Amino acid sequence: MINRKNVQLGTVRSSIRELFEYGKQRKKEIGEENVFDFSIGNPSVPAPPEVNAAIKEIVDECDPVLLHGYTSAQGDYGTRKVLADYTNARFATALNAECFYLTCGAAASLTIILNALLNAGDEVITFAPFFPEYRIFIENAGGRLVAVKCEEDTFRIDFDRLESAITAHTKGVIVNSPNNPSGVVYTEEEIVRLTKLLEKYSKKYGNTIYLISDEPYRELVYDERVKVPYIMNYYRHSVVCYSYSKSLSLPGERIGYIAVNNEMPEFSEVYAAICGAGRALGFVCAPNLFQQLIKRVYNVTSDVSVYKRNRDRLYSALTRYGFKVVKPDGAFYMFVKSPEQSSVDFCERAKKYELLIVPGDDFGGEGYARISYCVAPDMIERALPAFKKLAESYR
Amino acid sequence: MINRKNVQLGTVRSSIRELFEYGKQRKKEIGEENVFDFSIGNPSVPAPPEVNAAIKEIVDECDPVLLHGYTSAQGDYGTRKVLADYTNARFATALNAECFYLTCGAAASLTIILNALLNAGDEVITFAPFFPEYRIFIENAGGRLVAVKCEEDTFRIDFDRLESAITAHTKGVIVNSPNNPSGVVYTEEEIVRLTKLLEKYSKKYGNTIYLISDEPYRELVYDERVKVPYIMNYYRHSVVCYSYSKSLSLPGERIGYIAVNNEMPEFSEVYAAICGAGRALGFVCAPNLFQQLIKRVYNVTSDVSVYKRNRDRLYSALTRYGFKVVKPDGAFYMFVKSPEQSSVDFCERAKKYELLIVPGDDFGGEGYARISYCVAPDMIERALPAFKKLAESYR
Repeated sequence: MINRKNVQLGTVRSSIRELFEYGKQRKKEIGEENVFDFSIGNPSVPAPPEVNAAIKEIVDECDPVLLHGYTSAQGDYGTRKVLADYTNARFATALNAECFYLTCGAAASLTIILNALLNAGDEVITFAPFFPEYRIFIENAGGRLVAVKCEEDTFRIDFDRLESAITAHTKGVIVNSPNNPSGVVYTEEEIVRLTKLLEKYSKKYGNTIYLISDEPYRELVYDERVKVPYIMNYYRHSVVCYSYSKSLSLPGERIGYIAVNNEMPEFSEVYAAICGAGRALGFVCAPNLFQQLIKRVYNVTSDVSVYKRNRDRLYSALTRYGFKVVKPDGAFYMFVKSPEQSSVDFCERAKKYELLIVPGDDFGGEGYARISYCVAPDMIERALPAFKKLAESYR
Repeated sequence: MINRKNVQLGTVRSSIRELFEYGKQRKKEIGEENVFDFSIGNPSVPAPPEVNAAIKEIVDECDPVLLHGYTSAQGDYGTRKVLADYTNARFATALNAECFYLTCGAAASLTIILNALLNAGDEVITFAPFFPEYRIFIENAGGRLVAVKCEEDTFRIDFDRLESAITAHTKGVIVNSPNNPSGVVYTEEEIVRLTKLLEKYSKKYGNTIYLISDEPYRELVYDERVKVPYIMNYYRHSVVCYSYSKSLSLPGERIGYIAVNNEMPEFSEVYAAICGAGRALGFVCAPNLFQQLIKRVYNVTSDVSVYKRNRDRLYSALTRYGFKVVKPDGAFYMFVKSPEQSSVDFCERAKKYELLIVPGDDFGGEGYARISYCVAPDMIERALPAFKKLAESYR
């Protein structure tokens, strides 16, 4: 009688959440320090001190009626202007405040842009492995997710598979780089090849294919030589979905944005559809206090050096133990190959050593498991002997 | 090619927004103090001092990783427990924390509950005049809004009209009391009569009809004798959508909740569907800092005595000038009868006296205009001569 699909969505826990709850229970049984929980992508680094300092300043300095009042649906103009200037300086774009639409975080950015673009039956391509909520967001917008498997063992884009997946119904492609769960960052060469392909097929089918760049992990890159290409520099019909959840360690505060490339001829229509979709979904505006915050700390990032040290420590140890892992260039995940066919069985076996890692199946990455290394460094040290034993159990 | 409905929604400004923008322009032309803007329902009273004090305390006292981190989708357990205890003490309910689901404000509460309950083609009844966004929210959830006109001149529920509007497809009824835009508060007698009718027709058609109480204006009631009945005390299949936008003057911060009556047998399914809908729409969780805030100031309200004084001053003057108005018991709106047939023409004429009031047509209240009196009292004093001239122009 009520909406079955949403009952189902609210009842079935994701495997990540399931494991997280198991971990909480297990910690009670054998002690916090004896469970090695690598299940959740929750930043372990606090927000930089500038954040709380700015919150107090804002509360002291701003007129409370304005501070806590509605902004326009698009967001505070001053904040959007600052974001435009910052983006232009950093990526040599020519955006203006009117290109930005502030949102309640990355999930909101995605549901809004998908509802803005999609009509019933449209297809959206993404590269597997991928963040499982994409499927839910796309289906809720009336579309169908088409997962294109990445190259085995490298998780780079498989362009042959991509080409055969594009149809006359393809409305968009979501790229997520640095990637959750593989940690891969797409190179400029890959992005150029991807955009050429989208141009070719947009023309062939007479349907614009939009490129949606989901970038919550943009600032989480650990080597100087690794650059995350800015999608707008390569493709006119592109939209960037950004979130401060990871870069400022503010996942619970729900603040991010959509930026629309003003080089696309139908810019005004796309931006209007974003406003319409945000309205219909019930977003009204992004939390005003955090809009004001971003205006002040737009160029600050949490200390992500911990994640880099975690990555290096874990990667070198795991490979030493014999695990196959693609070294992640960014984000805070590592996708490890299962030594047995079923990654579900692999993760179950890991549990015996109190290691909580998530089967890749939900991510469209069968045969792999995701390790979230946004954790305390000492937990990694304590977990390494367990990983070693896990590896040895397969000899 | 992209979603036409959302392009349309994002392009066409509401008449309220249109008038508000006109007012901004007009103020530039003839001076701020010469334009009497009664167009927008934005609280004019600041958040109580407890709010900013609590924000600073929270920032100082809480572990930043926890404070700014994700909560569960349902919201912080401690906050939900406080809300359950407070609601039980105030309304003699027997709710628990598990009945509450924290949201990004009233609009989110509504879109989530509507997506949780509705299947394609379901009908949702509301009483006209009504908040125009209801139509957008209901249609986005796949449903159809059925507007039941209130009694002429009193804006009380017309039970004959209601009865003939209920069909086998009726999935829910939205009540909004105190009402935007009429200011009417439904009496206990009306609520009892309404719920009896819903029980009768739920039985007749074998379909549960849900009662959704949209309560952003609950605390904005100006007379001791006026009680706002708590819907859960009258009907099992009821859900309360609450927001702190008006009661704490925090409309821009997006914080509110859904409370589900635990007396309904299918409670678990409805709650699960809410979780599913919130997930699919991209809400993730309500802003954590404001969840923590509510835990501390759940029983505080802005000083709404200004609104009462505004109401009294405006009501007595307008009736003296000859306008027909139902005296509002709550909210901060007054619905004045147009002296000419078209309320659009009436509002256009009001503009000549620099009075910005909104035609009732968008609210399903043709022949009336909405006056928002959440404004500075001195603006009302300055506006009264203009209202007087407007009245005289019809003699």
